[in-house]
Amino acid sequence: MPENPLHLLLHPKSIAVAGASNNPVKMGTLQALSILKDGYEGKFYPIHPTEKIVLGHKAYASPLDLPETPDLVLLVVPTAQVVPILENFAKIGTKRAVIISAGFKETGPEGQALEERLREIAATYGIRFLGPNCMGIVNTAISLNLTVAALEKRPGSLGMASQSGTYITQTLPYLRERGIRFSKAISCGNEANIDVIDVLEYLGEDEQTKAIILYIEGIRDGRRFIATTQKISPVKPILAQYVGGSAAGARAGLSHTGALAGPDLLYEGIFKQAGIIRCHSIEDLYAHGWMHAAQPPLRGRRLAIVTNSGGPGTAIAHNADLGGMTVPRFSDALQAGIRPLIMPYACSANPVDLTFHLDTQVLAAVIPAMILESGEVDAIAIHGAMNSGFMKAVYPHMREIMGDMSLETFLALMEKDMTAAVELPRKYGLPMVISSFFGREDNNTSLYMDHDVPVFDSPEKAARGIASLLRHLEIRGRKPIVMPALPPENPEAAGMIRTALAAGQKALDEHQAKEILAAYGVPITRERIAANEEEAVKIAGGIGFPVAVKACAWEIMHKSGRGLIALNIRTEKALRDAFRSICAAAGKEIPILIQEMVAGSREFVAGMTRFPGFGPCVLFGLGGVFTEALKDTVFRSAPLSAVEAEEMLTDIRAKALLGEFRGLPAVDLPALARILQTVGAIALLHPEIAEIDLNPVIIAGSKPVVADALFVLTA
Amino acid sequence: MPENPLHLLLHPKSIAVAGASNNPVKMGTLQALSILKDGYEGKFYPIHPTEKIVLGHKAYASPLDLPETPDLVLLVVPTAQVVPILENFAKIGTKRAVIISAGFKETGPEGQALEERLREIAATYGIRFLGPNCMGIVNTAISLNLTVAALEKRPGSLGMASQSGTYITQTLPYLRERGIRFSKAISCGNEANIDVIDVLEYLGEDEQTKAIILYIEGIRDGRRFIATTQKISPVKPILAQYVGGSAAGARAGLSHTGALAGPDLLYEGIFKQAGIIRCHSIEDLYAHGWMHAAQPPLRGRRLAIVTNSGGPGTAIAHNADLGGMTVPRFSDALQAGIRPLIMPYACSANPVDLTFHLDTQVLAAVIPAMILESGEVDAIAIHGAMNSGFMKAVYPHMREIMGDMSLETFLALMEKDMTAAVELPRKYGLPMVISSFFGREDNNTSLYMDHDVPVFDSPEKAARGIASLLRHLEIRGRKPIVMPALPPENPEAAGMIRTALAAGQKALDEHQAKEILAAYGVPITRERIAANEEEAVKIAGGIGFPVAVKACAWEIMHKSGRGLIALNIRTEKALRDAFRSICAAAGKEIPILIQEMVAGSREFVAGMTRFPGFGPCVLFGLGGVFTEALKDTVFRSAPLSAVEAEEMLTDIRAKALLGEFRGLPAVDLPALARILQTVGAIALLHPEIAEIDLNPVIIAGSKPVVADALFVLTA
Repeated sequence: MPENPLHLLLHPKSIAVAGASNNPVKMGTLQALSILKDGYEGKFYPIHPTEKIVLGHKAYASPLDLPETPDLVLLVVPTAQVVPILENFAKIGTKRAVIISAGFKETGPEGQALEERLREIAATYGIRFLGPNCMGIVNTAISLNLTVAALEKRPGSLGMASQSGTYITQTLPYLRERGIRFSKAISCGNEANIDVIDVLEYLGEDEQTKAIILYIEGIRDGRRFIATTQKISPVKPILAQYVGGSAAGARAGLSHTGALAGPDLLYEGIFKQAGIIRCHSIEDLYAHGWMHAAQPPLRGRRLAIVTNSGGPGTAIAHNADLGGMTVPRFSDALQAGIRPLIMPYACSANPVDLTFHLDTQVLAAVIPAMILESGEVDAIAIHGAMNSGFMKAVYPHMREIMGDMSLETFLALMEKDMTAAVELPRKYGLPMVISSFFGREDNNTSLYMDHDVPVFDSPEKAARGIASLLRHLEIRGRKPIVMPALPPENPEAAGMIRTALAAGQKALDEHQAKEILAAYGVPITRERIAANEEEAVKIAGGIGFPVAVKACAWEIMHKSGRGLIALNIRTEKALRDAFRSICAAAGKEIPILIQEMVAGSREFVAGMTRFPGFGPCVLFGLGGVFTEALKDTVFRSAPLSAVEAEEMLTDIRAKALLGEFRGLPAVDLPALARILQTVGAIALLHPEIAEIDLNPVIIAGSKPVVADALFVLTA
Repeated sequence: MPENPLHLLLHPKSIAVAGASNNPVKMGTLQALSILKDGYEGKFYPIHPTEKIVLGHKAYASPLDLPETPDLVLLVVPTAQVVPILENFAKIGTKRAVIISAGFKETGPEGQALEERLREIAATYGIRFLGPNCMGIVNTAISLNLTVAALEKRPGSLGMASQSGTYITQTLPYLRERGIRFSKAISCGNEANIDVIDVLEYLGEDEQTKAIILYIEGIRDGRRFIATTQKISPVKPILAQYVGGSAAGARAGLSHTGALAGPDLLYEGIFKQAGIIRCHSIEDLYAHGWMHAAQPPLRGRRLAIVTNSGGPGTAIAHNADLGGMTVPRFSDALQAGIRPLIMPYACSANPVDLTFHLDTQVLAAVIPAMILESGEVDAIAIHGAMNSGFMKAVYPHMREIMGDMSLETFLALMEKDMTAAVELPRKYGLPMVISSFFGREDNNTSLYMDHDVPVFDSPEKAARGIASLLRHLEIRGRKPIVMPALPPENPEAAGMIRTALAAGQKALDEHQAKEILAAYGVPITRERIAANEEEAVKIAGGIGFPVAVKACAWEIMHKSGRGLIALNIRTEKALRDAFRSICAAAGKEIPILIQEMVAGSREFVAGMTRFPGFGPCVLFGLGGVFTEALKDTVFRSAPLSAVEAEEMLTDIRAKALLGEFRGLPAVDLPALARILQTVGAIALLHPEIAEIDLNPVIIAGSKPVVADALFVLTA
């Protein structure tokens, strides 16, 4: 395997900067200062057309003048200069570049052409570069900072890849306030050469990085993304925020599946398939990512809560419960140990409520140690371990009565030794989270943060932080994904599609679609086309009443509510009536499909549509009349392993329908999953199929049967 | 109308404190210090058994020694002393008390008895008191602070009633950091006398209070709560967090409705009925409450976004869209005005993206003023108006290059006049929200906060803050709620219930239940009881095939999946078979109900269960086999006005089923709403009915018909 291009990019022994000057309000200057001031120990070479000295370092007019070949060049120059400068660095043998300059693909065709030029240079000279239009990189292991903002010096364990530069620059002070520290952070920019998946691969291998966060606006190579994340995510937690598609962005399509598809729903499914924990805000992305990076992994669902107030305790319990955690009642023995330490009427059962209490040692060390020692829980949340924050708030009131004691003396007097408290997670190997209404102005909050214990500024957030760890416990417990080989292409199916396209069809008719499904082993209804009424009667006799009677022509993609379908036909007379009435509704003699009526009250939909970057994606959901009304549907990218297909089934809200249900047997899940796998395979084998709808897939007894089908062809 | 008891409680001319001493680590001392130090100008009388001087003020051994009758007494004494001291104050004529002391109802029967004693004293002497077991009150209008924490001096406009004391004490520094300021805040404690609804009424009338937030763990008088909030909420926004019931707290019950009922789902519905905006975290409760209190009301959905970075701009747009706002494209004229102020390739359409930009005047004043002036939007969100926070972060890098300029000089150099920026909401009467990753350490953040412009620390939160305003626009637009008179009790219905109870029935059988429904005008299926097979054939002939055949006995509450029901019976032979097979399944000769088959693919459920504090509550949801699988149900408290009942209908996720749907006509909503109103009325008229299930209510054409019914009787 070739070395990941990020390795050298993040560990250069020497860096040249084109675009730094002695003008302090230029971006390039700020970035050069970050290199010089944040502790990077490699060499620094400013490139400047006129200045002899830049920021105290000898400057060079051209790369060709440099005394050695720098490992990395940082380009912060006007757009037009990027290509010639990069090419000069290429000529002297520099192999890595970070291109901050903007004005490329994002500005239109001209910029697109310039960006193409960068790729050509890279290909010619074997350069790998980040950007253009990115905001830089951070590698805290060697104090390397190419962003405009100052870096937190102490190395951290959270790796980030971001498609928005803001989230590794503007937020650096925000992160410092919250005790969150990067291992590596990379702004991906336009991804003209190195892309977000390269970064992800690197962070997956990087030992310093214990958890990975991704800010994503769009993925170009969906299958590579999924393959990469599926390899990393069972070992190292990956969290991602996707912002880009909302309800307003939903696409139009000829099938129900197409109409249901929107980028947000797609990414929701892709993240689950990839084993990625989705976050819905930048705050959660950082805070939950840090939770995973800094705390021991969660090994079970049982949460202990210790609080100095009932309200926050209840809020933690409620939100932990919503996130799938339990708050078990402590054993009598454990409660007997706790009770002497709390007020006589306070609760010792879990949550432990000390009520208003200023001895944070009891609250945050003594009682928690007792609980963690007991083996009765898998994690602990503590609210109210406040000290100097609260003391500073009451000091103005108390100064006089304390004999005009100084604030410092007062705080020192009230301080407790919290060494044992902050070491609890390490000592017991169990995750701990703190809820406090006090930020870094409180010495306890700071101490926790400095010992890598996440502090959340509300009880609800602390609970959600712990619950995020549970998501990774579930991901670690996923069955191994074994991708089966695609079935061979069925020549009859291929022939039918060719013929249909040659005839100018925009879709296959229901019967054609089902013949293809049957050819690939999908269970379908028994049915035959009747050319006329007499034939219809004969076919129905063969199938046996009741039957369904449907108009069957490719132009008729949706039959409901238009008089083109009659269900539950039980007699010959009713059949003849239905035949005539459907022909009348169609306005002409039309092929009529006579079909067995499948008895079953559970109806699902399976489908397929194609997304840019992801190719064919398979849909599963609640079917029949409820498909659009309830929109209870999920997507995954094809091909699908059996595990991924079965995960889709239980990912719908109405999953209770899949089990034993009101006297009906449990659904044959492997059989239903195979239909989804086959839909994906058909889409991959036959790229001429644009969209697929199988709706309804009726559960007859426990077995799924496709009762209606639509294949839309590519225009 | 009698004066609200909170009026005097929040505006005392003199306060006695029992429990303050010269010991600084006592709660009573801290609270007395808050009275003395935070600017309250009334008189202060410490009561102390031995000390002569407390906190510099003459102390009195007993209330009876006081030179005047204080308007208010604050009690922070051991539990056993509360009753005698309160009684002494009662004797001298004090009419209001705040009882901090705990150890009452919350501790068991003994405490319960003590609390009862407090109520007796109050009743005897005409005292109204808050607590016991509360944390105090705040009235910023007169700088009155009875909590242990120091108060933000500047009066605010957000009123709070809290059933957890923490949220008006421990969080005071938290609120100060975020620029959120109370008008009045009241910790309700055990609500032995003054309850949360009294507080709500007061805040509704209080002119200083522009929005109200409630932290609720439980409501005792549900109807009074709803009536009070419905009066206030169209005028003054009310936001509430309810924490108490989760999935784990769902109740068991004999009916589906009972099984679906949980306190969380109930409060969700009650809040909607009451016109309350629900918040799911204490952070949102404060921040959204402050948004409503401090900003002009929102008058439309159109949001402008101005940002210095694409990522946050997209996040605001996405989350605003999820919250129901739109982000309209600006007119060509407006864009032409904006374009000269931004980079040539930056977006001027909305969001306006200035990209990395340090001139916050352009970002936060010039462009926003242009946009607000245009009339093209109803609100604006700005991201990135950072100044000193960012400058402090880069100063360590820049100090040297700036000629060792001091931080102060550097900051002064970079500062921009933001006067116009912070005045925008007032100038244009349009709400504005700021997203910034910098807190109060940034001078712009502080300036915004000090001018009552809410600053959120993430773009997602800023968007959700604006969307919260939209909820109140919707509440202001609610149709007026006109409560119809209850129908008169139907004597036949009452007789049937009496007879059933006398016979020891725990429920009514389906046919009995439907007779009661019909008596109150609810449309039901045509049906009759058949005593034997021959009668069944005769009845079916009268109704006309197809028919449903059902076992009908009160003991059989759920017929599905047990062979006790046969649907779609089309012939006499099938009817006879069904009759025999049902009798066989029942194991005995049993009354059999012959019923018309209602044709309709849309099935709903209506129901009723009783909740402590709220009495009968009506349920509506998706019915038939999906009821439990999808749990798409909503609750409201009875009686129901037509408006409230119709709001229930469109509150389900599957509301698309109510409109024109796959060739079916729109549902007759008033008819369906009338069923819900009638279910509520029946529950109020007949308290012997514990639970009601009408499932399914089938939509035949456009009209709802009750096809099955269960009335559970009180044990």
